[in-house]
Amino acid sequence: MASDSSKLEDAIELLVRNFYKHAGGNDKMNKEEFRKIITQDLHHILTYTENKEAVDKLIKSVDKDKDKKISFDEYWTLIGTIAKMLSQHMAMQCQK
Amino acid sequence: MASDSSKLEDAIELLVRNFYKHAGGNDKMNKEEFRKIITQDLHHILTYTENKEAVDKLIKSVDKDKDKKISFDEYWTLIGTIAKMLSQHMAMQCQK
Repeated sequence: MASDSSKLEDAIELLVRNFYKHAGGNDKMNKEEFRKIITQDLHHILTYTENKEAVDKLIKSVDKDKDKKISFDEYWTLIGTIAKMLSQHMAMQCQK
Repeated sequence: MASDSSKLEDAIELLVRNFYKHAGGNDKMNKEEFRKIITQDLHHILTYTENKEAVDKLIKSVDKDKDKKISFDEYWTLIGTIAKMLSQHMAMQCQK
């Protein structure tokens, strides 16, 4: 990314780089690599990350094609779900 | 967001806050507010932002329900398209 890229562009790039950092340069993550994102990187937004059963259930629901791997599209769908959750929260705050 | 939130959580929050900043606290943006995001915040990733016609075309394609406004979901779809573009670019770099 260009050195004078915007904060928005940097945020998008960070989200994309984060996938490849955890996927070890592969184009899919295995379940343990994905569990690390949930427990290490999403433990404020997702409140149940210490509950193994809840995390297993989340991973199962994200793995849409049931290949026991997480593709970028599947990862991005979770990020989108979290973003929409946050946006509903902010929309309510805007209406107060 | 908690003060010790992760970089990933901060990036998601920034993307969501950016929508509401430009939407002036409303739950939809008008076309001029959305044009500002494209020309100010995405002008490195999107190379044609100085081309008014190209930007008009992009806005039209993002406005899925043709209500002349941009909802959070429509905004997020564009962010997802850009993220997937970046991810394909990074995936190719990983395979070199």
